[in-house]
Amino acid sequence: MFAEVGLDAASVETICERAGFTRGAFYSNFESKDELFLALITQLSEDKLDEVSVRVKKLSGSRDVVDLVRQIASMSLAERMEPQLLSEVRTQALRDPRLAEAFLAWRAQMLGRIETIVRDVSELHALPLRMPVADAAVLLLDISEQCSVQAALERLSERQANRAMQSRLEQVVPLLVGPV
Amino acid sequence: MFAEVGLDAASVETICERAGFTRGAFYSNFESKDELFLALITQLSEDKLDEVSVRVKKLSGSRDVVDLVRQIASMSLAERMEPQLLSEVRTQALRDPRLAEAFLAWRAQMLGRIETIVRDVSELHALPLRMPVADAAVLLLDISEQCSVQAALERLSERQANRAMQSRLEQVVPLLVGPV
Repeated sequence: MFAEVGLDAASVETICERAGFTRGAFYSNFESKDELFLALITQLSEDKLDEVSVRVKKLSGSRDVVDLVRQIASMSLAERMEPQLLSEVRTQALRDPRLAEAFLAWRAQMLGRIETIVRDVSELHALPLRMPVADAAVLLLDISEQCSVQAALERLSERQANRAMQSRLEQVVPLLVGPV
Repeated sequence: MFAEVGLDAASVETICERAGFTRGAFYSNFESKDELFLALITQLSEDKLDEVSVRVKKLSGSRDVVDLVRQIASMSLAERMEPQLLSEVRTQALRDPRLAEAFLAWRAQMLGRIETIVRDVSELHALPLRMPVADAAVLLLDISEQCSVQAALERLSERQANRAMQSRLEQVVPLLVGPV
C-alpha cells in the first residue's frame, strides 16, 4: 500500500483493513505509521543482506574482484518496490527530526551488516581495501541506493535493473581494492 | 515554500501570493507546480556548477589529486535547502512517469556539465581516469547527493556539511585516478 499510494496517503485504518487487523492490534505493536514503515524496510533490507551473507560464504576462492562481485551481485539486488519506499521515508525524515533519528538508526544497522560482509570478503580473499571498511560500506550502500532509484525512474525491468546494478558494482568495487 | 511545507502542500495559489504574481502570470510561464519546481532546482544546480567551473579554471597546476579536490570542494557544495527539495521531487517522480522524464532530463543536463568539468581537470592536470568520464560523473553526482542528504538528516551545520562532503570527495576521487 505504501508503494501504491505513498506514505502520506496510506492511512492506518486502510492498512489495518487490508491486513485484516484491528486498529487496536496495530497500536499495540507500533506507535505510528512511520514506525510500521521503518519496520517494513528493515525487514526488506535484512532479508536482502541475509541473502548476500549466504552468498559470501559460498564464494569460490577467487582473488579476481570482478568475478567475486559477479558472484555476489548476480542475486536480485535491485528490487522494484524499495526505491519508492526508501525515497518516501527519506523525504519525510528530512522534515521530521524524530523520523530522521529512526531512519539514521536503520541506516547504521544496515551499514554495520555491510561492513561485516565487506570485511569478510576482504580478509578471506586477501584483498586489502584502499579505505577504512566503514567508509567502503557507506560508498557501496550509497551507490546501490542511487542505482536502484535511477533504474526505477528509467522504468527498467527487474532484469535490466539488476544488470545495471551489477555493472556499476563491477566498475567501482575494483577501485576500492589494492595497496593503500 | 517547497522546502518549508513540501511539494504537495505548496499550492500554486500560495506560491503566487508569496511571490507577488497572479495565477495568470504563473500559468503563462509554467504548466504546473512540478515544472516550476524543476526550473528551481535546475537554477540552483546550474549556479553551483557555474561556481565549480570558475574554480576549475583557477586551479593551480598541481597533480596532487587531494589538493585539487580541496581547491574545488572548499566552496559551499552542500547547501541547506537542496537535499529536501531534491528528495521530494525524486519521490514524486518515482510515482509520476511524466515528472520522471523531466527529472531524468534535468539529471542528464547536470551530468553533462559534471562530465565537462571532470574531463577538463583530467586533461589539464594529466590525470588519467580509471573509468569512462561519463561514469565518473555519475559516481560523483551520486556521492554528492547522498552526502548532502546524510548531512541534512544528521542536522549538520553548513560548515560541518561542507567538511563531510569534502572529506568524502578527498577519499573517493583519488581512487578514480590512475592507469586504467
